[in-house]
Amino acid sequence: MGRWEPDAESRFRAAAIELFGEVGYDQTTVAAIAERAGLTARTFFRYFADKREVLFNGSERLQQTMVDALARASAEASAVDAIAAALASAGDFFDDDRRAFARLRSSVIAANADLRERELIKMATLSAALAQALQDRGVSQPDASLAAEAGVAVFRVAFVQWVSESERRDYVEIVNESLARLRTLVTG
Amino acid sequence: MGRWEPDAESRFRAAAIELFGEVGYDQTTVAAIAERAGLTARTFFRYFADKREVLFNGSERLQQTMVDALARASAEASAVDAIAAALASAGDFFDDDRRAFARLRSSVIAANADLRERELIKMATLSAALAQALQDRGVSQPDASLAAEAGVAVFRVAFVQWVSESERRDYVEIVNESLARLRTLVTG
Repeated sequence: MGRWEPDAESRFRAAAIELFGEVGYDQTTVAAIAERAGLTARTFFRYFADKREVLFNGSERLQQTMVDALARASAEASAVDAIAAALASAGDFFDDDRRAFARLRSSVIAANADLRERELIKMATLSAALAQALQDRGVSQPDASLAAEAGVAVFRVAFVQWVSESERRDYVEIVNESLARLRTLVTG
Repeated sequence: MGRWEPDAESRFRAAAIELFGEVGYDQTTVAAIAERAGLTARTFFRYFADKREVLFNGSERLQQTMVDALARASAEASAVDAIAAALASAGDFFDDDRRAFARLRSSVIAANADLRERELIKMATLSAALAQALQDRGVSQPDASLAAEAGVAVFRVAFVQWVSESERRDYVEIVNESLARLRTLVTG
């Protein structure tokens, strides 16, 4: 690592998301991101492999947080209660300070087919990891996959609501409500 | 259209899936598929835009079948009952005559990252279409998306079971059982 830059990662992230919104994702270069951030491209590559990673470099940490929360759920917790704990644990990532970034990120991804694919892969990977974590708790198949897929369905829908312009409730409240709604739908 | 070839589409499909399994998807050329089928490459392109379409050209018809079944469900049917009707309607595609092809297709897709992405996109498109069809029936958001995503979750899991080597039950039986299992998981 070279010279220490205060808060370089978040400066790159803010600069990149601004530029993606202003000139488009495809048209934004790492050089332009670095210039906007007042840093160098060389420093950029200490934090991100490429510009796409600005949007996705939190995925692994998010997944690990959810898998850890699932594993820590009490032994008596049902598969869906363990999934609910995993979904709620993501609240540490999706606090109100992140909402403005998450909104911009969602609109950038919605506008770009490659990024939408990357997001789908991320969700499929998350679903597989949660299913495996449920199996590690002794939940058999196909229940582990069903509960994990349903959990990711709830997560997707809750996340879309959380980043919608008019939404003010926090992520955990929304995700818990989504899970309750799924329960009502499936049993109603 | 040129000379009529009896059952050309299914001959190409059988030849392609054999070759994908034998020499790999990436290594299989349209020329090789045509040769194996005893037909010409020129004829191949009357049925498929490229070799990938051999695996995916039924997607739109499947989606339309499910959307139509959802729209035809009785006005009193709940969102999830309408989704259940949509899932069951796919049984016309997934009959026992197709199971051997579907098994080979699944293993070809599992072995190739691009094809896995294509399959994820297909599922996301299906989910969006089912959510829209539910909204057209008067189901509001986020319930329409939640029910559609849960339905696609059930479909995915049921399909994996249907194509597994030891599975003998038919698709409709499996998908109905998966939905019942999801109900038990979510309420239990």
